[in-house]
Amino acid sequence: MDLARSPLALPFPEIPPIDGVTVRVARARYKEWDRADLTFIELAEGTSVAGVFTKNVCCSSEVKIGRESVAGGTARAIIVNAGNSNAFTGYRGREAVEQIMAQVAGHLACSKEQVLVSSTGVIGVPLPKDKARDGVEAALMAEPCGWEEAADTIGTTDTFAKGAHASAMVGDTRIELGGIIKGSGMIAPDMATMLGYIFTDAAVEPVFLQTLLSDINTRTFSCITVDGDTSTSDTVLVCATGKAGHAPIASVDDPGADAFAAALEDVCRSLAQLVVRDGEGAQKFISISVSGAVSDESARRIGLAIGNSPLVKTAIAGGDANWGRVVMAVGKAGEPADRDRLSIGFGGHWAARDGQPVADYDEAPVAKHLAGQDIDIAVDIGLGDGRATIWTCDLTHGYIDINADYRS
Amino acid sequence: MDLARSPLALPFPEIPPIDGVTVRVARARYKEWDRADLTFIELAEGTSVAGVFTKNVCCSSEVKIGRESVAGGTARAIIVNAGNSNAFTGYRGREAVEQIMAQVAGHLACSKEQVLVSSTGVIGVPLPKDKARDGVEAALMAEPCGWEEAADTIGTTDTFAKGAHASAMVGDTRIELGGIIKGSGMIAPDMATMLGYIFTDAAVEPVFLQTLLSDINTRTFSCITVDGDTSTSDTVLVCATGKAGHAPIASVDDPGADAFAAALEDVCRSLAQLVVRDGEGAQKFISISVSGAVSDESARRIGLAIGNSPLVKTAIAGGDANWGRVVMAVGKAGEPADRDRLSIGFGGHWAARDGQPVADYDEAPVAKHLAGQDIDIAVDIGLGDGRATIWTCDLTHGYIDINADYRS
Repeated sequence: MDLARSPLALPFPEIPPIDGVTVRVARARYKEWDRADLTFIELAEGTSVAGVFTKNVCCSSEVKIGRESVAGGTARAIIVNAGNSNAFTGYRGREAVEQIMAQVAGHLACSKEQVLVSSTGVIGVPLPKDKARDGVEAALMAEPCGWEEAADTIGTTDTFAKGAHASAMVGDTRIELGGIIKGSGMIAPDMATMLGYIFTDAAVEPVFLQTLLSDINTRTFSCITVDGDTSTSDTVLVCATGKAGHAPIASVDDPGADAFAAALEDVCRSLAQLVVRDGEGAQKFISISVSGAVSDESARRIGLAIGNSPLVKTAIAGGDANWGRVVMAVGKAGEPADRDRLSIGFGGHWAARDGQPVADYDEAPVAKHLAGQDIDIAVDIGLGDGRATIWTCDLTHGYIDINADYRS
Repeated sequence: MDLARSPLALPFPEIPPIDGVTVRVARARYKEWDRADLTFIELAEGTSVAGVFTKNVCCSSEVKIGRESVAGGTARAIIVNAGNSNAFTGYRGREAVEQIMAQVAGHLACSKEQVLVSSTGVIGVPLPKDKARDGVEAALMAEPCGWEEAADTIGTTDTFAKGAHASAMVGDTRIELGGIIKGSGMIAPDMATMLGYIFTDAAVEPVFLQTLLSDINTRTFSCITVDGDTSTSDTVLVCATGKAGHAPIASVDDPGADAFAAALEDVCRSLAQLVVRDGEGAQKFISISVSGAVSDESARRIGLAIGNSPLVKTAIAGGDANWGRVVMAVGKAGEPADRDRLSIGFGGHWAARDGQPVADYDEAPVAKHLAGQDIDIAVDIGLGDGRATIWTCDLTHGYIDINADYRS
């Protein structure tokens, strides 16, 4: 099944080389396809690393091992296998990951723990060790390539290459951040795991880098949903090579910490939104802004209940300002809410205020907004100061086509 | 949009008259349609009542008031309005419910709290008081009708009338239980709320009746899902008229308590499954049996995570034995699970045991099972004795048609 390019796709951005980062790709032929499917990202000595991983308890060996390795704080290489997720493959899957770690560590003369491995694709088939060995060997010897080629190589059912760029000033030093990501949401562990990689030449201590990433994650990658299904392999890594040459950032009080954090959040938000823009069957990009909740976390949960509701998503697909379904989703979220304080709007127009339909509600501008491609839903809970924004896509016939009619 | 009769529909069963229960229907014309849409169920003096209601915090006035009324333990009448859910309508909605309670209480010379009201249909439009008054007046004067006519009258987008029957011996007395239900799942608060009513001539003390219903609910109505969206109006009531004449059942130790509880559970399970069989767009009926969880409640949550997964539901729609998606759903449930102890099977055949694909797995009999209409998924967590069974349906193009292409 050939997937058409998402109507919500964005062009791949201009991302400059990041000092200390070299990208290569090769063909391991994990599937019967004519494309590169193994990515090797080499990192300069002294590169700091931080990561966030899936909360799915049935996670892959890559995630289990990766979580331990990232705790060490430094990395020299990332290997990404596309076409086989190596999840639910027991000890054989683990052996394949350890083989790759040893092979790359030998080449770079670093420790195994400094080699991070991700895999994405079909579940339940152990990653073939011979293909992995030959693929890694080819990648180690390959000519360096650009970011867009790497973004294409880590993809599986993605319909477009996804990247983001930001820069910031740390004191007098300009630093660059570049990131790539793959995924059509968390909706298909055998087809579309989310894997994201962000690189910067900034110098950032590992512990502080992890603190920043974990915090930013709650407002970016943890705020997107396609259908609420959580992949077994989700991974986002941030690598800071330090090649920009400024004094290392180790806490929020250090010069440039705020600027770096803001730039990192920009890149994370852009990458997260790109995954939604490639959501399976997506025709509309939906932003759900929740305010007035008892806390930010409560707002996030309410937003996700709305964003995961098949009823809300099909209503948007049909261009229907069906605020009753939003009420339902708020009510089922399991978070504090009061029916008689609830307000709901679309595209800047309130449809319901304080628990009742707006008296002079004019559906015409709302219908026009819903006919567009970028949909805004506003929900005010009326109880506190908690707020969050969730990004999702609509639920269409395309989703059924991809996931039911297609035999994986 | 005319909805075709569900391919999973069952014929309406033979339900005998229940002594102490009289059913009448009338036309309130809540919508522009040519059908009865108001049901009046009269209950003999001394009838015990118990109820379970939606947990949605944005529930309707009917649910808020009904919850308080049921706490009184006795009921004389049930009024069901179809075509307007009266949810999210503020004080005006509440006034309409109170008007109906007063009108019926005046007719029966009972207290207002003994009149239970349910409404189902569009959200956000206050129930018109004049139509309700005339409709109730007509219903009070109407000739009694049968169970199937009542089941048709409480329905909205249901594609078939749904009922269940059981009988049991309490000492030497044969008692009858009859129930009707409406709903195409909890998937559409403006289209398809779940409302269920069960009647028996058994004599059961209200507190014990409530204990039984609350317990049975955890294994029946709380074990079905169409898409995980929780209606704002869900209600199930059990009414025991006591007309069978045996000594009242007030505890598990009383004669007939076990027989009555088993019969009540039979009726509840049948009614719950009928709702799934009328799930929007359903082509297959799916039973998910979870064993080996750390508790029954943990098993239920895992089963619901599987049953609510759009990925699992689309895989079944496509006849795909995609056990990787079941692994994913188990892992995201937030319950204790160990990837390396997990086993998954379809139609009596294990596809994966103890965290790995079965070595000599033969897909032929599994593919044959999945081509059928009744699908069994077995999941063993391998950690404890907790078990639960969840019933759901597949996710098909019909679901999108009904909820996106149809403007409610």
